[in-house]
Amino acid sequence: MKAEIVAVGTELLLGQIVNTNAQFISRECAAIGVDIYFQTVVGDNEQRLLASLKLAASRADVVICTGGLGPTQDDLTKDVLAAYVGRQLILHEPSMNAITQMFQSRGIHMVESNRRQALMLEGSDPLHNETGLAVGVAFTFEGTHFILLPGPPKEMKPMFTKYAIPWLRTMMKDEVPLYSKMLKFAGIGESNLEHQLIDLIHAQSDPTIAPYAKEGEVTIRLTTRAHSAEEGESKLFATEQEIRNRLGQHIYADQDVPIETVVVKMLEERKLSLAVAESCTGGLLSDLITSIPGSSNSFLGGIICYSNALKHKLLGVPMEILEGEGAPGAVSSETAVILAESLLTSTGSDFGISVTGVAGPGTSEGKPVGLVYIGFAQKNAETEVITLQLSGNRESIKHRSAKSALYHLWKQLKES
Amino acid sequence: MKAEIVAVGTELLLGQIVNTNAQFISRECAAIGVDIYFQTVVGDNEQRLLASLKLAASRADVVICTGGLGPTQDDLTKDVLAAYVGRQLILHEPSMNAITQMFQSRGIHMVESNRRQALMLEGSDPLHNETGLAVGVAFTFEGTHFILLPGPPKEMKPMFTKYAIPWLRTMMKDEVPLYSKMLKFAGIGESNLEHQLIDLIHAQSDPTIAPYAKEGEVTIRLTTRAHSAEEGESKLFATEQEIRNRLGQHIYADQDVPIETVVVKMLEERKLSLAVAESCTGGLLSDLITSIPGSSNSFLGGIICYSNALKHKLLGVPMEILEGEGAPGAVSSETAVILAESLLTSTGSDFGISVTGVAGPGTSEGKPVGLVYIGFAQKNAETEVITLQLSGNRESIKHRSAKSALYHLWKQLKES
Repeated sequence: MKAEIVAVGTELLLGQIVNTNAQFISRECAAIGVDIYFQTVVGDNEQRLLASLKLAASRADVVICTGGLGPTQDDLTKDVLAAYVGRQLILHEPSMNAITQMFQSRGIHMVESNRRQALMLEGSDPLHNETGLAVGVAFTFEGTHFILLPGPPKEMKPMFTKYAIPWLRTMMKDEVPLYSKMLKFAGIGESNLEHQLIDLIHAQSDPTIAPYAKEGEVTIRLTTRAHSAEEGESKLFATEQEIRNRLGQHIYADQDVPIETVVVKMLEERKLSLAVAESCTGGLLSDLITSIPGSSNSFLGGIICYSNALKHKLLGVPMEILEGEGAPGAVSSETAVILAESLLTSTGSDFGISVTGVAGPGTSEGKPVGLVYIGFAQKNAETEVITLQLSGNRESIKHRSAKSALYHLWKQLKES
Repeated sequence: MKAEIVAVGTELLLGQIVNTNAQFISRECAAIGVDIYFQTVVGDNEQRLLASLKLAASRADVVICTGGLGPTQDDLTKDVLAAYVGRQLILHEPSMNAITQMFQSRGIHMVESNRRQALMLEGSDPLHNETGLAVGVAFTFEGTHFILLPGPPKEMKPMFTKYAIPWLRTMMKDEVPLYSKMLKFAGIGESNLEHQLIDLIHAQSDPTIAPYAKEGEVTIRLTTRAHSAEEGESKLFATEQEIRNRLGQHIYADQDVPIETVVVKMLEERKLSLAVAESCTGGLLSDLITSIPGSSNSFLGGIICYSNALKHKLLGVPMEILEGEGAPGAVSSETAVILAESLLTSTGSDFGISVTGVAGPGTSEGKPVGLVYIGFAQKNAETEVITLQLSGNRESIKHRSAKSALYHLWKQLKES
């Protein structure tokens, strides 16, 4: 089933708000096997809205509109659609009662325009608004299903999930639902990953194979159609196995989670503690880890040794290593080792990770932007250092360094 | 001038990412007087992409595309557009050199498909990509201007601001250009700010007054039309003064910079150093500060005292304050004071800021989610503690706490 989202609102076209509704609806639709082919945003303008609705109806089985159901003169969606399909707007009594009651209970005089929020198209199904006043609408016209939802996400989301999706499911009773699975990769770039799977990607039909990249992480989504999770898994099995055979060492999860989620969980399960010493990442690595609820069970904290003074004072890196002619410097394998090892004694953690490098924009100690050393120390094991030469701006180098540290910690935990 | 944004990417239609690019571009266009009439999202599909481009060209003076410039087979934008307008794709040598160099410097074998990122349409203007590999493209075809930008926001934003906007300005030479100015506020919420300016906002005509909110920061953009900066400033003067009279104590900048930029600059100018002790913000405060180039001149670093053990070991908070019946606990004014003051001695910094609180999702020490204490210590001054009760999820509480710490530091620096 093909669908199109038409978001109505001049505030979207002015960039005052982000169209998060489109993402929410798209994701929910993907999950039930409704394919979104287009998302459109149009302003509060009668002519352009009508043109967008007609175009959407011409190319989609389902047209999902958000916005323009409110009480003001700018809220045109129902009027425009009623004129288009040639139906009257009638009052939905339960919604009108709810509106009247709300105003009474707050002791506010109800402005007449609020009645507009209780209007629906003749012969349409009302969609209950549990968190607001404007009633939603669903109906079918010349083979196209229309769903009208309010714009505010806190009203739209529950209405869509609880009322619009069940309505939509009854309209697509013959289709087999989609089943999909995410494979998450770290320590490999998108183009390298694609290169290694290019034959599979080219030959794909069922399941489909879709790669995409975020900073420091790559995801592959495998999708097929199945009546149950079991059937879905069995249809994905051969493809997933082939991908695992080739790139299994980079797959850290089979669901859409960042690598820090997996690392925090592994540390917790093994009752291992972690501390970090961050120079060039400047707190980002800790920030990623502490974004995961429950990280406090294994993450002790760390030291942001941004200056050489703190590298020396708090983590005991000798000044003759940090500065002076012929010294290895703050950005060096030597410093990474001492920082990581010092964490074990100063914090008592099981793992100590250090990151020191040149985030840019300028070079440092005559070393190039993007040169990063990551040290891994643990009790009863030799300290390791990983050297990276990253590209990108300051933000990107910080981000990739932090993700890389997490990837190598994950590898160590997996192998141990 | 009418414009349309065409975002290309199946990941948008699957709801895997939010189209924040459309918001950014819409806002920037509004600022220079380009009106966005439609935003469209289309998948990585040749036919539908072509149809969207043709439709956009038929109804807009400017078509701005994002996405589909990458190295993979899915990246179709340049190919589809080249076929549509009947131009060849040619290699942009400087971009190709940058790509080759990047791979060489990292010692990675360059996959052939990476060449695709250096392609541009014959006779088009290249748009330099400072933060990535894919070159942007701008050209005019049958009276419609086309601008092709990469999808990743960190590449798209600088390319759009630094290269596409100037290009666009030369194309709209007959229009009186918009002149706008941003006022950035901290320490005040959007609805409170709007409430205090509601009469100005309702009565606005020239200049226009547009407020926007991000996590922990509010922006007001004043816009008029002017031939020069001087004329623009004089047309904005009365409105800006009125806003400053009412809310001047919250205005930390008159350009679009985050508060950390201003704080870092003030510290540097006054040759003051800063160290932080982060508990509930878990590294985010340091991350924000170190995202500013040059922060190393005044930011020494700090301690992520996530666990009580580290609060005690590294910053000397007595265990009887942290734990035990009747103890104030880690989330307390007492702990915030000791953490902040200890920084002065352990790091030798001029300022010490501590943040300790409950980021959630669960409560801690029987204290509610969102309760946060921020300690400010400085040499020869009494230590202050600010108590916040924030709402929102874990991420939001971390973010607002960090921004709040920066706001209070800014206030202290301004008054000193």
